Amino acid sequence: MILNMFEIKSLLRKGIRDLEPYVPGLSEEALQRAGHRSEITKLASNENPTSPPDPVIDAICQEARRINRYPAGMDETLAPELAAFLGCGTHELIFGNGAEEIILMACLTFVNEGDPCVIIEHTFDAYETAVRVAGGKPVFSPLTPSFHVDLDDILARITPETKMVFLPNPNNPTGTVFTKKAFESFLARLPEHVVVLLDEAYHEYVDAPAYPDGMGYIHDAPLIVLRTFSKAYGLAGVRIGYAIARPDIIDMLHHVRLPFNVNRLAQAAAMAALRQRAWVQEHVQKMLGEKQFLYHALKELNLFYISSQTNFILIDTGKNADQVFQALLHHGVIVRPGTIWGLDTFIRLTVGPRRENERFLNALKAIIS
Amino acid sequence: MILNMFEIKSLLRKGIRDLEPYVPGLSEEALQRAGHRSEITKLASNENPTSPPDPVIDAICQEARRINRYPAGMDETLAPELAAFLGCGTHELIFGNGAEEIILMACLTFVNEGDPCVIIEHTFDAYETAVRVAGGKPVFSPLTPSFHVDLDDILARITPETKMVFLPNPNNPTGTVFTKKAFESFLARLPEHVVVLLDEAYHEYVDAPAYPDGMGYIHDAPLIVLRTFSKAYGLAGVRIGYAIARPDIIDMLHHVRLPFNVNRLAQAAAMAALRQRAWVQEHVQKMLGEKQFLYHALKELNLFYISSQTNFILIDTGKNADQVFQALLHHGVIVRPGTIWGLDTFIRLTVGPRRENERFLNALKAIIS
Repeated sequence: MILNMFEIKSLLRKGIRDLEPYVPGLSEEALQRAGHRSEITKLASNENPTSPPDPVIDAICQEARRINRYPAGMDETLAPELAAFLGCGTHELIFGNGAEEIILMACLTFVNEGDPCVIIEHTFDAYETAVRVAGGKPVFSPLTPSFHVDLDDILARITPETKMVFLPNPNNPTGTVFTKKAFESFLARLPEHVVVLLDEAYHEYVDAPAYPDGMGYIHDAPLIVLRTFSKAYGLAGVRIGYAIARPDIIDMLHHVRLPFNVNRLAQAAAMAALRQRAWVQEHVQKMLGEKQFLYHALKELNLFYISSQTNFILIDTGKNADQVFQALLHHGVIVRPGTIWGLDTFIRLTVGPRRENERFLNALKAIIS
Repeated sequence: MILNMFEIKSLLRKGIRDLEPYVPGLSEEALQRAGHRSEITKLASNENPTSPPDPVIDAICQEARRINRYPAGMDETLAPELAAFLGCGTHELIFGNGAEEIILMACLTFVNEGDPCVIIEHTFDAYETAVRVAGGKPVFSPLTPSFHVDLDDILARITPETKMVFLPNPNNPTGTVFTKKAFESFLARLPEHVVVLLDEAYHEYVDAPAYPDGMGYIHDAPLIVLRTFSKAYGLAGVRIGYAIARPDIIDMLHHVRLPFNVNRLAQAAAMAALRQRAWVQEHVQKMLGEKQFLYHALKELNLFYISSQTNFILIDTGKNADQVFQALLHHGVIVRPGTIWGLDTFIRLTVGPRRENERFLNALKAIIS
């Protein structure tokens, strides 16, 4: 019995056929393998550019001797430590193999086949993918002309059938936030059958005083607040994110969680990283300073950019973004072309250390002049 | 707007409400936290009892400096190395956060709401959970009176609506295998609309000469062969498993794969572990010897056990398994009670080093006498 390609495709689950696998930002390794020989600057994936501090490395090396054993449950190790740090209850927390896994878990927990879910246009594509994998139907809400999430538009798109709403705050790739006042007004008008996933992956970088801390609202709505160790905490490579929600919601997410979804070394690294608060703060402060440096340089180049509450900047190059992306690659600089999000003249630049930001600016100047 | 527990439950996706979260085997850490003070022997999760060899630890410690970066894609690193080792193509491989994630990925790729899927009774519960999460309907095939997978019974339960069949070979918790001849006869009679997941998590321990190597059949059927680094390779804690299938099937599994599902340290550990073939072989040989030692002792105790092709043994204690499990815990020995699989007088014992096997036997003797 030999099946051809067409027949295999005919076995696919509904909704899966049209999904495209995610294409991540180019890695330094990939560019090196592609034959690029000079120095490579990766400003593409909103990572912390620094290796984690020694206590984190040491915690990993120590735990490495125990990796023949399945990961221990987190309820009595990482969860109490994080709960104390956040000021929430242990049973208000759940962990994922990256925050992205929790997005999928939430959809698999709540979204039935055909359920509409509101997602903003120009955002992290994991929301749409997870909704489609669960069989749901994405409904898109456009950004405002100033590239902000339009909470009123989202509310207007909610129907009695709507199951979930995805609110990134700050949003990726625009870097914009909505205010405490706007969020509270949104929650007050939100029908109670809608589960809200509030993605705060970048919250450590926010300095807008009107920014709402999602944790403060978990008892006011079916709200899942998403956080990660991948960005400011510098642990993108070990994969650990978490969600904060009411214990009854957390309990339901556990129904679809894979038993050993967070690996031993990620648990050890996160425990150690939580104690490196000063290191995280220092990184955030440095990036905020570098962001001002980049803003200044972009203004001098007469380039429009969106003022950002994160460690990345969306920049309008005025040219075809794919071509700018390729030209930057020739200079050894990796960014993300806005074409991924339907923003055809924009590039998304991760804020890096001064030397890398300068390399980017020099390359960009050479390209646009 | 305050929702009560009932209202939250009413938002749940179909099929999720009745799922129970997986309860993993007790960890040494959990037993220590519970106040157990003497030595603890964990023979519960079919792990390799030995810390990985130094080159694996070194690879992890070295890679730890890069964990601020997202994991690189595996197509040009681990995949070619594993493909060369296995003698298959790079595009015939996909990796998961443990093999268990691939079970879920397969169901999310192929199983529509209501699709029947055939699962054997008394097996690894991840198959049923994944089918239910995808919205499918498990159909159970009983084992033969000798506790073997009944391939004829499975075929008899396949209807035109059946989407997937789960074949563990060896099966967990029975440790039994089906033969090459039986499998080939099964494939010859299998309707071509059924996707087969052949789980070979324990294949390194098999010494039955009639055992079929699933890899040899991936071009004969929509067959997904599942393997793991969690058992013989001693990497349960870092979470990495893989599947071998036709490139068109692999391609479809990528549609639902989370972009960074396998962490950097797991990739580095697996690359290093692949080069530790002698260490793996030595472990397997030692466990086969210890299994004979345990068989002999169990015969002396007049206890029935199922002859196993794995690193675990299913033993009929003749008593209530939960009580035996608790009594063994008092002696500091962790096993798995058969009640998990509806086998109410059985316990599943992981074969350990001699000293741990002796501790188990001494505790068991004290309990059953």
